[in-house]
Amino acid sequence: MKIKAYAAKEPKGKLEPFEYDLGPLGPDDVLVNVEHCCICLIDFSMINNDWGLTEYPFVPGHEVVGIIEQVGSGVTDKTVGQRVGVGWYSGSCMVCECCLSGDHNLCGTAESTIVGRYGGFAEKIKVKALWAIPLPDNVDVLSAGPLFCGGITVFNPLVQFDVKPTDRVGVIGIGGLGHMALMFLKNWGCKVTAFSSNPAKAEEIKKMGAQNIINSRDPKELEAAKGKFDLIISTVNVSLDWNTYIDTLRPKGRLHFVGAALEPLSVGAFPLIIGQKSISGSPLGSPAVTEQMLEFTGRHDIKPVIETFKFDQVNEAMEHLESGKARYRIVLSH
Amino acid sequence: MKIKAYAAKEPKGKLEPFEYDLGPLGPDDVLVNVEHCCICLIDFSMINNDWGLTEYPFVPGHEVVGIIEQVGSGVTDKTVGQRVGVGWYSGSCMVCECCLSGDHNLCGTAESTIVGRYGGFAEKIKVKALWAIPLPDNVDVLSAGPLFCGGITVFNPLVQFDVKPTDRVGVIGIGGLGHMALMFLKNWGCKVTAFSSNPAKAEEIKKMGAQNIINSRDPKELEAAKGKFDLIISTVNVSLDWNTYIDTLRPKGRLHFVGAALEPLSVGAFPLIIGQKSISGSPLGSPAVTEQMLEFTGRHDIKPVIETFKFDQVNEAMEHLESGKARYRIVLSH
Repeated sequence: MKIKAYAAKEPKGKLEPFEYDLGPLGPDDVLVNVEHCCICLIDFSMINNDWGLTEYPFVPGHEVVGIIEQVGSGVTDKTVGQRVGVGWYSGSCMVCECCLSGDHNLCGTAESTIVGRYGGFAEKIKVKALWAIPLPDNVDVLSAGPLFCGGITVFNPLVQFDVKPTDRVGVIGIGGLGHMALMFLKNWGCKVTAFSSNPAKAEEIKKMGAQNIINSRDPKELEAAKGKFDLIISTVNVSLDWNTYIDTLRPKGRLHFVGAALEPLSVGAFPLIIGQKSISGSPLGSPAVTEQMLEFTGRHDIKPVIETFKFDQVNEAMEHLESGKARYRIVLSH
Repeated sequence: MKIKAYAAKEPKGKLEPFEYDLGPLGPDDVLVNVEHCCICLIDFSMINNDWGLTEYPFVPGHEVVGIIEQVGSGVTDKTVGQRVGVGWYSGSCMVCECCLSGDHNLCGTAESTIVGRYGGFAEKIKVKALWAIPLPDNVDVLSAGPLFCGGITVFNPLVQFDVKPTDRVGVIGIGGLGHMALMFLKNWGCKVTAFSSNPAKAEEIKKMGAQNIINSRDPKELEAAKGKFDLIISTVNVSLDWNTYIDTLRPKGRLHFVGAALEPLSVGAFPLIIGQKSISGSPLGSPAVTEQMLEFTGRHDIKPVIETFKFDQVNEAMEHLESGKARYRIVLSH
């Protein structure tokens, strides 16, 4: 079967129509008819081969919503016609300690949807059935895509680190990931603070669920926040003065990274020791936690804030995102 | 009441006999007749005013075992004649969120036994009753002192981070703290590995409970340990290549600091994110966890390895410890 897609032929290349042969459907695979696919900043990094992982022609796209069109001979838990989402992962080994413990997202040989294979900027995509996560009926279809990469990335730490509704949580960077973090945390019952350097977003940020906003460029506001947070989730990919943020943690607090610059983190050991504080990171979530997120999203009527483009406007959409003007996630539709 | 003690009069000064006036016993205080007091490396740092916290004359000593001689009018939980231990902390506010949550060791205004007051190199010491922890009958008296600073420092993370007997745990640095960590971990049921740069200690290290020893100066041995540990506890106060140690962690693993150099930790964010790994620190434990440690120590017949000196040999004992030859903790006795 020939699949129509959009691919970059070289680093920083524009996306152009591209066709590839799908190959046979494996026993554990499903074929998903793509309805919507979002753009994530990682797609840019991969187009530009920032991490040396990109193979060209490169088809981006790892926040897919679509309908299952075919299931492999061994698939027992998915059916043709079912609406599913696909995120960063498209397969995992199923037999390592992580997979066997339910942490398929930490599998050392997990397959990524856009590394060494073709992604979701396409009419169809083939993935392992496990990683095609059913979309509940009460989750909005058009805005669901961002949940499968950005959404689960900020939801997963709440589960992994047992965040409580009594916790005081800060979110650094209110963009694609951060705006979903605010929505989840508000509905999780937490006291929510946004660290943002863009005063123009203040009204929107409050609507998303932040009770407080701290200007991350104002040392006085950061100083005044000393000892306030149980958890801070950083979604940004720039280097900040992390010691200042560690100072804003309460005893037993955690500074958690879901985004990061390539530069090393430089942090003092003594503030960690004296305050029993942690620094940590996490990637996307497992299928089980993704299902928990979707149930939570539907029950609380959470909708990522999106802008929409047609697939044939993909380059225009990419430019809009790259300019920093997207509010907050861009959905491409057929 | 006049108290006889040993004090340094200036940075790097020898310890000399010194007398001070005890002042009145507060309602929450107990007066402890010192039987034994150990020497900890922190005593050196304080003598030398490394952290700018020292007041002279300075009386070191914060690993005390002794008998309660007097109790304040408000003390309900301690009695005259009871044998207790005193560690790094000698008081806490009792009303902050940490104290009210049982985390008295994280109290922002906790009083340290040797900061702004006189420590345990003395015939008697006055502390808040809460921080005079009863020594169970089945814990060896002579070797108990090290438990109250070094011991609780390495025991506390096992409780705080819910270490399981199935966990694979490494300990960096087998000295005063590290040797007790090995003993606790062995009896905790863990798979225990020592990271040590001193092959001469190998036999002793195995007796203490390590099933494996990795030469921390051999890059090949470290490389071979990739992805092996759920937890690594670092007890050293030098800077190592922490990224290498983070690589030796399994997914969800933790690199935990109870000792540290003054230089910042420099670590890559991506290994933390991809493997859901944490870096953390902790100080000593609360009174409740210290009591748990003592119950565990007695039940498993754990004995810190000590050398003994008389109090009037204190300067000789200090030189022995400073030379790095002490195996593994020095106890001073009257």
